[in-house]
Amino acid sequence: MSTVRIGVIGAGIMGADHVNTLHRLVSGAVVTMVADIDEERAAAVIGALPDTRATGDPYALISDAEVDAVVVASHDTTHADLSIAAVRAGKPVLCEKPLAPTLEECVRVVREERRVAGPGISLGFMRRFDPAYQELKNAVAAGVCGAPLLLRCVSRGVSAAPGATDELSITGSAVHEFDTVPWLLDSPITEVSWHAPRSTGAATGLRDPQLMMLRTADGALTTVEVFLNAGYGYDIRCEVAGERGALALATPARVITDAARARSCGYPADWRPRFADAYRLQLQAWTDAMVSGTPSPLATAGDGLVASAVAEAVITSMRNGGRTVAVQVPEV
Amino acid sequence: MSTVRIGVIGAGIMGADHVNTLHRLVSGAVVTMVADIDEERAAAVIGALPDTRATGDPYALISDAEVDAVVVASHDTTHADLSIAAVRAGKPVLCEKPLAPTLEECVRVVREERRVAGPGISLGFMRRFDPAYQELKNAVAAGVCGAPLLLRCVSRGVSAAPGATDELSITGSAVHEFDTVPWLLDSPITEVSWHAPRSTGAATGLRDPQLMMLRTADGALTTVEVFLNAGYGYDIRCEVAGERGALALATPARVITDAARARSCGYPADWRPRFADAYRLQLQAWTDAMVSGTPSPLATAGDGLVASAVAEAVITSMRNGGRTVAVQVPEV
Amino acid sequence: MSTVRIGVIGAGIMGADHVNTLHRLVSGAVVTMVADIDEERAAAVIGALPDTRATGDPYALISDAEVDAVVVASHDTTHADLSIAAVRAGKPVLCEKPLAPTLEECVRVVREERRVAGPGISLGFMRRFDPAYQELKNAVAAGVCGAPLLLRCVSRGVSAAPGATDELSITGSAVHEFDTVPWLLDSPITEVSWHAPRSTGAATGLRDPQLMMLRTADGALTTVEVFLNAGYGYDIRCEVAGERGALALATPARVITDAARARSCGYPADWRPRFADAYRLQLQAWTDAMVSGTPSPLATAGDGLVASAVAEAVITSMRNGGRTVAVQVPEV
Amino acid sequence: MSTVRIGVIGAGIMGADHVNTLHRLVSGAVVTMVADIDEERAAAVIGALPDTRATGDPYALISDAEVDAVVVASHDTTHADLSIAAVRAGKPVLCEKPLAPTLEECVRVVREERRVAGPGISLGFMRRFDPAYQELKNAVAAGVCGAPLLLRCVSRGVSAAPGATDELSITGSAVHEFDTVPWLLDSPITEVSWHAPRSTGAATGLRDPQLMMLRTADGALTTVEVFLNAGYGYDIRCEVAGERGALALATPARVITDAARARSCGYPADWRPRFADAYRLQLQAWTDAMVSGTPSPLATAGDGLVASAVAEAVITSMRNGGRTVAVQVPEV
Repeated sequence: MSTVRIGVIGAGIMGADHVNTLHRLVSGAVVTMVADIDEERAAAVIGALPDTRATGDPYALISDAEVDAVVVASHDTTHADLSIAAVRAGKPVLCEKPLAPTLEECVRVVREERRVAGPGISLGFMRRFDPAYQELKNAVAAGVCGAPLLLRCVSRGVSAAPGATDELSITGSAVHEFDTVPWLLDSPITEVSWHAPRSTGAATGLRDPQLMMLRTADGALTTVEVFLNAGYGYDIRCEVAGERGALALATPARVITDAARARSCGYPADWRPRFADAYRLQLQAWTDAMVSGTPSPLATAGDGLVASAVAEAVITSMRNGGRTVAVQVPEV
Repeated sequence: MSTVRIGVIGAGIMGADHVNTLHRLVSGAVVTMVADIDEERAAAVIGALPDTRATGDPYALISDAEVDAVVVASHDTTHADLSIAAVRAGKPVLCEKPLAPTLEECVRVVREERRVAGPGISLGFMRRFDPAYQELKNAVAAGVCGAPLLLRCVSRGVSAAPGATDELSITGSAVHEFDTVPWLLDSPITEVSWHAPRSTGAATGLRDPQLMMLRTADGALTTVEVFLNAGYGYDIRCEVAGERGALALATPARVITDAARARSCGYPADWRPRFADAYRLQLQAWTDAMVSGTPSPLATAGDGLVASAVAEAVITSMRNGGRTVAVQVPEV
Repeated sequence: MSTVRIGVIGAGIMGADHVNTLHRLVSGAVVTMVADIDEERAAAVIGALPDTRATGDPYALISDAEVDAVVVASHDTTHADLSIAAVRAGKPVLCEKPLAPTLEECVRVVREERRVAGPGISLGFMRRFDPAYQELKNAVAAGVCGAPLLLRCVSRGVSAAPGATDELSITGSAVHEFDTVPWLLDSPITEVSWHAPRSTGAATGLRDPQLMMLRTADGALTTVEVFLNAGYGYDIRCEVAGERGALALATPARVITDAARARSCGYPADWRPRFADAYRLQLQAWTDAMVSGTPSPLATAGDGLVASAVAEAVITSMRNGGRTVAVQVPEV
Repeated sequence: MSTVRIGVIGAGIMGADHVNTLHRLVSGAVVTMVADIDEERAAAVIGALPDTRATGDPYALISDAEVDAVVVASHDTTHADLSIAAVRAGKPVLCEKPLAPTLEECVRVVREERRVAGPGISLGFMRRFDPAYQELKNAVAAGVCGAPLLLRCVSRGVSAAPGATDELSITGSAVHEFDTVPWLLDSPITEVSWHAPRSTGAATGLRDPQLMMLRTADGALTTVEVFLNAGYGYDIRCEVAGERGALALATPARVITDAARARSCGYPADWRPRFADAYRLQLQAWTDAMVSGTPSPLATAGDGLVASAVAEAVITSMRNGGRTVAVQVPEV
């Protein structure tokens, strides 16, 4: 297979971004089909793409003969069923995080994936493909800072999406850190606790910001801040302090401006500029693996299950006054 | 009084630094006497200063007719008694932190200070005079970041001093943050908890680093990291995230070096370069107040008592598996 | 045409990089042929690419039926003849800079391109596609710094390539700035002068660094530093000071390291990490234009001619004691 | 002499700043007298200082029995005569730059200083006492960047002072660089040329910005930018590129602000915050030398003469189309 024909399910911001990236910037991939329950939205995303078809039925997309592989970027509640359907159809899947909203469903997906023993599900923990996170991981692995002891992860956004809940801050935003931290450290999260200051006035009825504490099996301690309504910009930070030094993601900036008594660089309004490269490179790596017939280097459904188990433990802590909770990853 | 004649008790690193700063860089102050239990060390610190006398007896210094005011920079265990003696002698005191090693002793000092009703004790929480901390406090107060929600304080050093203990990390290092945080926020610390990753191999028998969590009455949540053996340099950080933005101390750097495939700036090996200005300005402010007969703008013995109460709560948490402990400031 | 079949002439560092980028990272392009006078080198560059053929004859590549478009990345002296041959064969060309080593040859290429009136020659001034330079240009155009008055361009490398000459510093390195400056300002360079300090000891027989001064028609003044043997890293800077503020490219850094008493970020050893995105995006834009049948948005042969005219004026200044020389762009 | 009694001539911004700094922050100095042709202005500057007298006659100050040393901070045109008068009175002088507006007058002052053979004139090139410039000079001297080849100095201000002229940009602003560069390199300036882009619209009738090129005897080449109406802030830069690396003054910043989609730090509106430490440390060093009876470590009248000779050469270049002009330092 020299060109992979991809079907994208979901034509919201994320799905549209994937269609655009696959079509414009990924070598070896073409988008042959886009599905959305709102078929007109699917058609709008396709726009002027010449040979791409829209459908309102994601299962039709999955079974279509001109679809070699499936990207699942529809609503979180649909991830499990659609991923399973694609796996059963013998087609590789790239499922956006989370694998499923509940741990039980995650288990169901992983079991079904194993049972079918097909091409497998990749999970869209795209930070693993962000050049800055990769450089950070490589530096940690090379011992630049010595053995890691303390990590600090910060995820700040301008304002919470409509429908945000305390749990969604954890399963939708913090979950990225639940994958990134063990990936960076090569050590699983074993214990968590949840904390919060008073909430920002901008967060109606929401606990925002939240601060989580994670312990990994290697003995390191991580704090994770999620602040959906930080207001000033989309700002992702990650710092590692180790036995010999410290490492941190640099503030991404291309241009420095001197104006009006200040030296400044800009923050983006959302994740797209910050992680455009990560999404592109993740899609490219997924495509390359399919073209060459090698295993996908992306996060797996199993990784998604583990991250969801961490999220569940954090939610348990949140509901129990911030007490320390052990992470329990279900056997599959 | 147009020139204040100051006696300095303690001729270790800190005392020597004070003598040097007072003599060379503070307007309106002269050092007339230096006391140390090792009188030769006192004499060595005096060096070529023309009109300064050495003594082995700190009480002789306190009662000396040519000493208008006393700096206490001797061993922590002597702070309480010497400060009380100076207060009884009717002389202003600048006592290095901590006010006393135990909360009981702090109470005793504050009570005696109140009873005597003399010129009072100032406490050497010099960060209040650091230009960067002051600019940070002013920006918080001006609402630049909105109401503060999350703070992060980091104190890293190259290697622990001989004799370091888990408790000394708290009462000797973290105590600076226990004063800085309520000063920055204008809100007292009400509740604390203590945490730690596995310790660095460089810390023989020590819990290092430590991570503390502080709640203030305003609802903000602060993490304090103390890492005595961080190895790479003396590095003090403070960040505030609020409802509209975030503020942070900049990395102090005067010169940027491009060499050997890297762009870099240096870290100092200890606190002296980082806080030289803070110590100088604190001594200047103390001197100015004495010259002009106005109240000392420095931290008070009462502030020292409060910080010690926080330290005690943190130690209680440390000894009880990291549970949350309410701060109890004794009535005086 | 939904996939462009590209032939790459030249299998040196630059050609190999183009083959790799086109094959791995550019959507809509396949490399069908690689030519090098050393056919084995061409074969080595192809490596495991499945459907790509090697040849020792660039003209065979140009006329090959399975080559839709030609990248010229062979020795500078071959650029003119190969570009003309491709144009005559009716195939789009992307020629690496310079268009030709001499101004006369540049004129010949542009004239022949116009005569043939075919698909046209694009020139590899890839900085136009660097995201940082684009953000800088957009900020200038948006008036962020007001009307530009002073520019500063710096090109530093670790060590000069073998065979470097004073003229090659100008025609091979500074020439990038001769294109970037008028592109940034939207104003042509009208007058130049050449200057230099004493040379670095690392530059045997070479004037290195060199400092050029350029005037543009809009009245702005630009200094261009080229320092081939700067030693410490590959470092490209660009700053614009205008009527209301200043803009500058940020130092590209993904990770900050605290170690050994320093805070640092790394410099690359050569241009590849710095401009990987620029080369990729330039090739993508060229490919997109061919796929969609729209004009190439890359620099043109005419732009290459203009840059060579500036280079010639700078060389004239260098040979005449640094006197100011007017740029004369030949009529074509 | 354990306390130096200082008289300050000139009660403008600069003189007031000196009075304030000497009184509040310099150890070993008291201001006993302030002179200004507007005696009320002198009285206003004194304000609440207890033992300081005002006068409208600077010569009365110079001859006053309670004035041990004289600071000359009055109008540039008075510097020469007042410095000479103080020298003749046997009193040390700290004269603000320039030593005199014309080279002839500088020569007269230096000759008279030598003839009298008294305590001598120090010149207020305060950058020599700025901690950042000192760290830069030390790094250069330590060989951190190897032998210097290219320097870049930038002096930008918010807006030109009333009465600014093209010549005053050179003799009043650029003159700091004419002292700093040879001091940094330990090598005299031998040759200069003057250049400029079109002027900013904010500069009515003024050539602003200006760009000067300086050659030093060691073979290094320096560009000096002076931009009085830069608008965005007071911004002083200095960079040195050498045989092995590069050094630069860091942007001074104490607090980083994240707000409104930007990460920023502030620029001051004028020189006072930027050089407050330099002025303080210069005055302290001058005072210390007088107290200890050692030679002043400040710049000398001779240094002022040399800087004025450079300024004159730059003005000659400006008036002659930017041609290269050799610096001629008059024999004294």
